[in-house]
Amino acid sequence: MAQDAEAALAEARRWWTTAVIDTAPDHIRFRGYPIEQLMGRLSFPGMILLMVKAELPDPRAAALVEAVMLGMIDHGPHAPSIATARMAATCGVPMNAIIASAIGLAGDIHGGVGQELMAILYRIAASPDIAAEAARVLAETRAQGGFVPGFGHRWHKDLDPRIPSLMALIEAAVEDGVIAGKHLAAARALEQAIAAGRRKIPMNVDGAEAVILCELGLDPELGRGIFVLARAAGCMVHAWEEMRQGGRLKGPMAKSILPTYDGVGPRDVP
Amino acid sequence: MAQDAEAALAEARRWWTTAVIDTAPDHIRFRGYPIEQLMGRLSFPGMILLMVKAELPDPRAAALVEAVMLGMIDHGPHAPSIATARMAATCGVPMNAIIASAIGLAGDIHGGVGQELMAILYRIAASPDIAAEAARVLAETRAQGGFVPGFGHRWHKDLDPRIPSLMALIEAAVEDGVIAGKHLAAARALEQAIAAGRRKIPMNVDGAEAVILCELGLDPELGRGIFVLARAAGCMVHAWEEMRQGGRLKGPMAKSILPTYDGVGPRDVP
Amino acid sequence: MAQDAEAALAEARRWWTTAVIDTAPDHIRFRGYPIEQLMGRLSFPGMILLMVKAELPDPRAAALVEAVMLGMIDHGPHAPSIATARMAATCGVPMNAIIASAIGLAGDIHGGVGQELMAILYRIAASPDIAAEAARVLAETRAQGGFVPGFGHRWHKDLDPRIPSLMALIEAAVEDGVIAGKHLAAARALEQAIAAGRRKIPMNVDGAEAVILCELGLDPELGRGIFVLARAAGCMVHAWEEMRQGGRLKGPMAKSILPTYDGVGPRDVP
Amino acid sequence: MAQDAEAALAEARRWWTTAVIDTAPDHIRFRGYPIEQLMGRLSFPGMILLMVKAELPDPRAAALVEAVMLGMIDHGPHAPSIATARMAATCGVPMNAIIASAIGLAGDIHGGVGQELMAILYRIAASPDIAAEAARVLAETRAQGGFVPGFGHRWHKDLDPRIPSLMALIEAAVEDGVIAGKHLAAARALEQAIAAGRRKIPMNVDGAEAVILCELGLDPELGRGIFVLARAAGCMVHAWEEMRQGGRLKGPMAKSILPTYDGVGPRDVP
Repeated sequence: MAQDAEAALAEARRWWTTAVIDTAPDHIRFRGYPIEQLMGRLSFPGMILLMVKAELPDPRAAALVEAVMLGMIDHGPHAPSIATARMAATCGVPMNAIIASAIGLAGDIHGGVGQELMAILYRIAASPDIAAEAARVLAETRAQGGFVPGFGHRWHKDLDPRIPSLMALIEAAVEDGVIAGKHLAAARALEQAIAAGRRKIPMNVDGAEAVILCELGLDPELGRGIFVLARAAGCMVHAWEEMRQGGRLKGPMAKSILPTYDGVGPRDVP
Repeated sequence: MAQDAEAALAEARRWWTTAVIDTAPDHIRFRGYPIEQLMGRLSFPGMILLMVKAELPDPRAAALVEAVMLGMIDHGPHAPSIATARMAATCGVPMNAIIASAIGLAGDIHGGVGQELMAILYRIAASPDIAAEAARVLAETRAQGGFVPGFGHRWHKDLDPRIPSLMALIEAAVEDGVIAGKHLAAARALEQAIAAGRRKIPMNVDGAEAVILCELGLDPELGRGIFVLARAAGCMVHAWEEMRQGGRLKGPMAKSILPTYDGVGPRDVP
Repeated sequence: MAQDAEAALAEARRWWTTAVIDTAPDHIRFRGYPIEQLMGRLSFPGMILLMVKAELPDPRAAALVEAVMLGMIDHGPHAPSIATARMAATCGVPMNAIIASAIGLAGDIHGGVGQELMAILYRIAASPDIAAEAARVLAETRAQGGFVPGFGHRWHKDLDPRIPSLMALIEAAVEDGVIAGKHLAAARALEQAIAAGRRKIPMNVDGAEAVILCELGLDPELGRGIFVLARAAGCMVHAWEEMRQGGRLKGPMAKSILPTYDGVGPRDVP
Repeated sequence: MAQDAEAALAEARRWWTTAVIDTAPDHIRFRGYPIEQLMGRLSFPGMILLMVKAELPDPRAAALVEAVMLGMIDHGPHAPSIATARMAATCGVPMNAIIASAIGLAGDIHGGVGQELMAILYRIAASPDIAAEAARVLAETRAQGGFVPGFGHRWHKDLDPRIPSLMALIEAAVEDGVIAGKHLAAARALEQAIAAGRRKIPMNVDGAEAVILCELGLDPELGRGIFVLARAAGCMVHAWEEMRQGGRLKGPMAKSILPTYDGVGPRDVP
């Protein structure tokens, strides 16, 4: 009986097992490093890299993540996530719940683009013939009637203002040996395959994120996660601005713009 | 040591203690009743009443809850919760997460009105002089620059089509002795106090919900909860309709309607 | 210019188009029926069926949905959704946000089982040879190392107490001509294919939900949605019970049960 | 008519008005600055400060926010937010929805502590007699049976390892003239009032956050928001670790630890 109790207890203690954080009344350590030595030393993206990769990151690697987070932070009230944050702010919702509702919209189509491309870039980069593999990916995608994630933008058709500077940062990091450039090459191969015989569709900010995070060896789920962390900040600021404007219970459009009803006409319950 | 283990284990087993459900490999019982005897016998609102009140409810009481849940289920795409559900449906979000984001907007102002009024109705009904207490509540509310929750509707100014039939159901339940009517009286006293010397502001559907749930002795938190359960269904149906329409990444308004920027003009980082 | 304005406005008004609800200051109609005629007449699941199917449902069809909603409402504090609701209730979270966080956990594995099986049942039922198609589904699933959703339960290994009575209700509805029974047959064929040469793995409550909703012709997304609506009620009641117990900031386990740290030992930042 | 259309359209265009971001096909500017000049220049917390305060921040101010964000990022699987993230990761939930559910738990008690203290610090700092106002706050709080937020920690009773280094950073920023120190003084006054005649209850990490954000002039809602942004990163990493461990549908505790049922015994539905 006592033995059973100890076995049950041991199982309970193993239920949540982590190698990320070790916390006890007198210490909090991340991957072995005491928190008091990390605060003031690491940037926020650097801390994430430590927690995931288990080693102190090169500050230039963390700076790449930081740059792309800035690029994804906000795209104005027409983005579904930002719109939700602003509406929620007029409904008496506390800030944590505002952000939760807003990033809930960062689904496969809105926030999952980087994650999807990361899986593709890992596949292409692992191939002995990058150009051929990129062409295969493209053909498979088109055969299914889809399009390759991470290229093109419905607002910034010709030039996304974020892309040239992000690309310059990535290329400088390759030159400096901070990253190897293999997944950048995979993305370039994909971009060329897409452009072949058609007009060029340039990489977008989700594409740049995927390149950076693949170069740093992160798992694809973190591509969506890091978009979410960035966008959460934009949602917070928009919600705060909306609170200060003082609206109450704002719907998606002005009351002058009513939805259209296209269903069956009035009838009585028999 | 073994004794310590058993103590730790006992504490662990008490950590989540419930009187609502008793589940084991061979049975699932709610408040003592086996689930297999409840399915097909109780309505969905009746089941909620059993879980909360610990006894099988009068079916006529459950029917009151059911009626008001129908009244709160949906108010079209201009309601922030419904709009969020429809936007989320275009962002590649699974149905559970769509509903979660949408009801996240049912905050103090959107979904918390019934809860707020329930606390007020309990206070008024507990007073020996209902009319005087209603007047006091109104005076306190106005002194703080607020307004009493559960009265008036910004769309249905003169007549909310849901109210006469809900009120008829409530009054019939009082006549039949299903409910005592004390909290209905409190709400009527409040309505009269509001109307005194001004134009009448009729009770709204949140008000009717508060009356019904107070009559049944539920805690105010459940007023918000039951609104949420009802509205969640509306959000689900709208999300499903939007999915079938096939939109992708829809913002709050058509692209022809761009947001206004009213901030500082272009400048360079020095 | 004025013409452009009208075009932009027309586009804006079509942005949110619905055939589910028609609401204006003097009326609220669902699929043409005035809300005041529906309240007190339709059950909550019946209202959902009206909103989705666009016609008043057979009350016996609505009763099937109601029965399975009762079966899915709650499975105790060990279910991740219920546990999250109870933890959230100790963190100062309002009821709508508690429910949102909790049903957020009703993902592919927790709340999406019925949705997944519905797609399979539609495929099998559309085949001229149900038994052969069921065998094909099973073979494909096993080839991918997965298992067919909707069968077996990790707690109720031999008999899920909900299944016999749900099955009796479904069979009675077939006999009464309320439903045709084709998707029940598909599920039975699947059950037999699974049992062939092995021990029987009985259908579970998600399986029963899938049968009922397919018989009623609902889309698979609504399978997840209806699970969520049901479970949301259980989450609400558990959160309310937890609030009354008065805990503050409760983690997943008692403080006597600490997590295990299995990472690198203490080290200093160089 | 055409005039009406233009009026309706103008109202629609003003519906979402922002001074934070100006985005169009060829530019994205934050508070006037082009995004391509900000990426690679500003840190992530620095970008938030720009978006909120409308001017480029002192990098040393941004560094203070960054340090406290590291301090709040994670407190292990016993924190309700982290536990929810880990459970969600075993339920087939995408990363954005995992983070949404998890930060949903950052409510008044879990994530709202800094926000609450910020309101108090602004009140104390605005008083001509800081010590007297701190004493008044304390007396009011105790009269209501509460306790002042931002002091004490249930795990780190004697010394929270994060506090000395955070305090050193704050004090250095005062010495350097980055911040004025008035809200630090308010917090110190509160700490002394609490300690008077009792044992000292040291400031905690939420307290340090409140001091920093008040010194930078942010609104209290952002105190909760910035906690959420930091904690969201911890939730992401824990969810990712849990996914790699491969658990499925994990409840809050091991199956060896069953919840306690303390309700009515078995009975039949009459």
